[in-house]
Amino acid sequence: MSNALLSKENAMSDQFPVVIGICLDAEAIWTGKLPADAYRPVLLSNGAFAIKEGLKPVLELLDHHGIKATFFIPGITADTYPEALAEIRRRGHELGSHTYSHRSVLGLTPAEERQEIARGIEAVERNGGVRPTAWRSASWEWSKHTLDYILEEGVTVSCNFQDRIRPYRHFRDGLPTPVVELPVQWHLADAPFFLYGGDVQRRIRPAAEAESVWMEEFDATYDWPGAFFHLTLHVQLIGHPGRLKMLDRCLTHMRGRNRTRFLTCAEAALLVE
Amino acid sequence: MSNALLSKENAMSDQFPVVIGICLDAEAIWTGKLPADAYRPVLLSNGAFAIKEGLKPVLELLDHHGIKATFFIPGITADTYPEALAEIRRRGHELGSHTYSHRSVLGLTPAEERQEIARGIEAVERNGGVRPTAWRSASWEWSKHTLDYILEEGVTVSCNFQDRIRPYRHFRDGLPTPVVELPVQWHLADAPFFLYGGDVQRRIRPAAEAESVWMEEFDATYDWPGAFFHLTLHVQLIGHPGRLKMLDRCLTHMRGRNRTRFLTCAEAALLVE
Amino acid sequence: MSNALLSKENAMSDQFPVVIGICLDAEAIWTGKLPADAYRPVLLSNGAFAIKEGLKPVLELLDHHGIKATFFIPGITADTYPEALAEIRRRGHELGSHTYSHRSVLGLTPAEERQEIARGIEAVERNGGVRPTAWRSASWEWSKHTLDYILEEGVTVSCNFQDRIRPYRHFRDGLPTPVVELPVQWHLADAPFFLYGGDVQRRIRPAAEAESVWMEEFDATYDWPGAFFHLTLHVQLIGHPGRLKMLDRCLTHMRGRNRTRFLTCAEAALLVE
Amino acid sequence: MSNALLSKENAMSDQFPVVIGICLDAEAIWTGKLPADAYRPVLLSNGAFAIKEGLKPVLELLDHHGIKATFFIPGITADTYPEALAEIRRRGHELGSHTYSHRSVLGLTPAEERQEIARGIEAVERNGGVRPTAWRSASWEWSKHTLDYILEEGVTVSCNFQDRIRPYRHFRDGLPTPVVELPVQWHLADAPFFLYGGDVQRRIRPAAEAESVWMEEFDATYDWPGAFFHLTLHVQLIGHPGRLKMLDRCLTHMRGRNRTRFLTCAEAALLVE
Repeated sequence: MSNALLSKENAMSDQFPVVIGICLDAEAIWTGKLPADAYRPVLLSNGAFAIKEGLKPVLELLDHHGIKATFFIPGITADTYPEALAEIRRRGHELGSHTYSHRSVLGLTPAEERQEIARGIEAVERNGGVRPTAWRSASWEWSKHTLDYILEEGVTVSCNFQDRIRPYRHFRDGLPTPVVELPVQWHLADAPFFLYGGDVQRRIRPAAEAESVWMEEFDATYDWPGAFFHLTLHVQLIGHPGRLKMLDRCLTHMRGRNRTRFLTCAEAALLVE
Repeated sequence: MSNALLSKENAMSDQFPVVIGICLDAEAIWTGKLPADAYRPVLLSNGAFAIKEGLKPVLELLDHHGIKATFFIPGITADTYPEALAEIRRRGHELGSHTYSHRSVLGLTPAEERQEIARGIEAVERNGGVRPTAWRSASWEWSKHTLDYILEEGVTVSCNFQDRIRPYRHFRDGLPTPVVELPVQWHLADAPFFLYGGDVQRRIRPAAEAESVWMEEFDATYDWPGAFFHLTLHVQLIGHPGRLKMLDRCLTHMRGRNRTRFLTCAEAALLVE
Repeated sequence: MSNALLSKENAMSDQFPVVIGICLDAEAIWTGKLPADAYRPVLLSNGAFAIKEGLKPVLELLDHHGIKATFFIPGITADTYPEALAEIRRRGHELGSHTYSHRSVLGLTPAEERQEIARGIEAVERNGGVRPTAWRSASWEWSKHTLDYILEEGVTVSCNFQDRIRPYRHFRDGLPTPVVELPVQWHLADAPFFLYGGDVQRRIRPAAEAESVWMEEFDATYDWPGAFFHLTLHVQLIGHPGRLKMLDRCLTHMRGRNRTRFLTCAEAALLVE
Repeated sequence: MSNALLSKENAMSDQFPVVIGICLDAEAIWTGKLPADAYRPVLLSNGAFAIKEGLKPVLELLDHHGIKATFFIPGITADTYPEALAEIRRRGHELGSHTYSHRSVLGLTPAEERQEIARGIEAVERNGGVRPTAWRSASWEWSKHTLDYILEEGVTVSCNFQDRIRPYRHFRDGLPTPVVELPVQWHLADAPFFLYGGDVQRRIRPAAEAESVWMEEFDATYDWPGAFFHLTLHVQLIGHPGRLKMLDRCLTHMRGRNRTRFLTCAEAALLVE
């Protein structure tokens, strides 16, 4: 079964774990980057595409392939669109937390960061009916306090670091913590190919180019002992017709390799002792 | 007939609407971005290409395919090149408004924005002989006053928002307004591939790359229930020989699908109840 | 003969003019952009490549194809490398002027601009043995005084404006001047694909990508009544082995069309009445 | 033998030297660019990938092809990861120096630069067991003091300048020095295609694109009398599965040409009289 939990003993030799982490940012992608963007309705509409158009076909595509993914949702998005969380959960996907307002930790005080983490988790729990244990920061950055704060909130999976292509456990003061890292890579995300607008660097690449980067990495990682494959998507970017056809081809390709096992973050974290 | 108005009943099931929105900015693309650019004759010549070379073959290509498009024209361009508006109208295309001086709303006071909208519409009406009802902002942005101001001027079509891939009606205070949105997408415009010069981020991509992005999206959107396809062009960018050959291939490809119906903005707006 | 001067009568109907304008900037490409770069020896070495490696194979490739080009040379480069000018002239190419120190006019006073133009022409004349009549600004920009200043210096060809794809005459106060414009295009230059280093936006694209942009434009322009093709190169960018192979393919392709006639700037300017 | 030292007499006619210079920056790539980055653990993890994942397969790939490379290592990285230097040396590669803390010389006082050079060489010697004689600056830049400082430290190979595609000797006051330059090129490095994160310009290109740029240049340079081929890699960028497969293809392609000889920097410097 494609979503069956891997048995620990042979996880790394007989099976190849694939994790699909999907950000449902909606407007928070822009308001989190720059507060002044809250007064730019067209820019916000670029994020709202995730709710109004992109989410439904993304969920249908995952269903079509029988894949359970993990959705990372800012608290403000959860408070604004609770029905989206209900639908994601109804289809059996994992709900993860993605801070409250999608502000980068680089501009926050420690107290603000702690509140962003706590409020973000509460909002997903309140609207989604289950307390999230997987967490991703806004913009893939940590402070020196982040590990402490996510431990306080019961987080057990982080999807942020870029130093490995296999899962590992975070340590503090030389001792193992409950937090498992499922490392990510910029080139295995959709944003570097498709993010456009506001004050970010602007890029629009053909869907086929993202496909070639992801699949060349998938095929090579597949043969790398102990490695896994972690793809990071954003509903507002991937949820367009042509890009969804490309994602469909990627999922078909990955399913065609017999050791591939799609796992949620919670499932993948169990691979680490 | 390719430009026949769709009957509302079966528009979304039997026919696939395609809207071609073309900006005729000329020098305003640069003077609107930065007033100091008014003293850079070579940079302005980059925009003047639209009038001096690009417009004629663009119009001929549309005639060749029997397609009526909507041209969005800044008021200052209409005042400077009235013969261009006459020629566009003579060929049966729709004249739309694109503010007066192509300045982004982000730098305007409310009074300035109101004047940009009103003067821009007046200039197109004065020079083109018909009052435009389709409107696009400069740089695809709105303020919180924009809807009020365009309603005052009788606008009934906006081509600005990015939250849907199907037309919808704008509401105010919970009530429907006369303004229909025909949403756009950055990746379905020519600027991200070809805009170069001045203080913008510089990009020159092969025409074949824009073609692959646009046509992969067209083909996938064609099968998306209720969706439409909206391509945004700029005469000074698309009106070069190699890019026009690419556009010719795109138009041929789109006409080759039997549900395709090319519509002006005014025609497409009638699809929304 | 590929370099035969076109007869005016049938120039635009029977023959397709191609102009190759080549900048020999050397270190001036960097010192002209930012004076502080004069203290960055490695950055300057990036420009010195033009003299130390690139020029010889560029000249040999042009000889191989029997093509005469126009070289635009900053005065400071002419003063530093007089033997380069001698070699270019010995092979029969045209010597053009490219300001004295390759500083953009946007940062100059009128007096400075006048001096840049006059000193630049003098330096090429002093070192090359012939007074240049073709002129290109640094960074493709003019001030409102530029036409006056280049007329004072006897310039008869400008390669700066971007508003046409056919040569035309500059007018002043409604009267024709001796200056003919041979318009250029950013996408028909090598810099947008290969310029890298210093404080500029950094781009490294495969040679095949520039080739596809240039040749798709060549092929389409070839059939455009009255148009010509104007390619702009920089010795420090195009003079690398892989890129020269690409240029070789381009020249072969262009020579393969029977109406193609390679002209120097001085020859091409005679096409305009 | 692929690593046999070329005899000087026929080096440039019968054999084609290929040098692989590999930076092992680890976290220093980020802390050197901006000190504040020292507090960004996720960004640092991007560099740590070099040690934790990338180095081992890079070394195995080189072994597989029987190629000896030169590794350029910042002193701070050598002090932090001495076992990495031991492993590189155990496999027979050359250890080079790459400043102490990977700070660009553009922001250093002369005293700071001198210390960066001296401490960097000492750290590699202390941890690697051999004093390095090959040196690369951080960010490929020199000051006017750099030649003096590296001469003081016994450096005999510099891999920094971009003005030639053949090795040459540095002169001072008209006299030859012991320092040989093995020139580099931006387009023959991996960073322009793969560097992402922090405050740099962000680029993620398919591995196949770097391959096409490098191999078109290799094939063309191979036939250029007296030239050599110098590829610059970074373990944190090239050490990903898909990119390593691409590098494998490149090495195979280069080995397939019968004049190809892979040399370390020390070996290649002996080619210069």
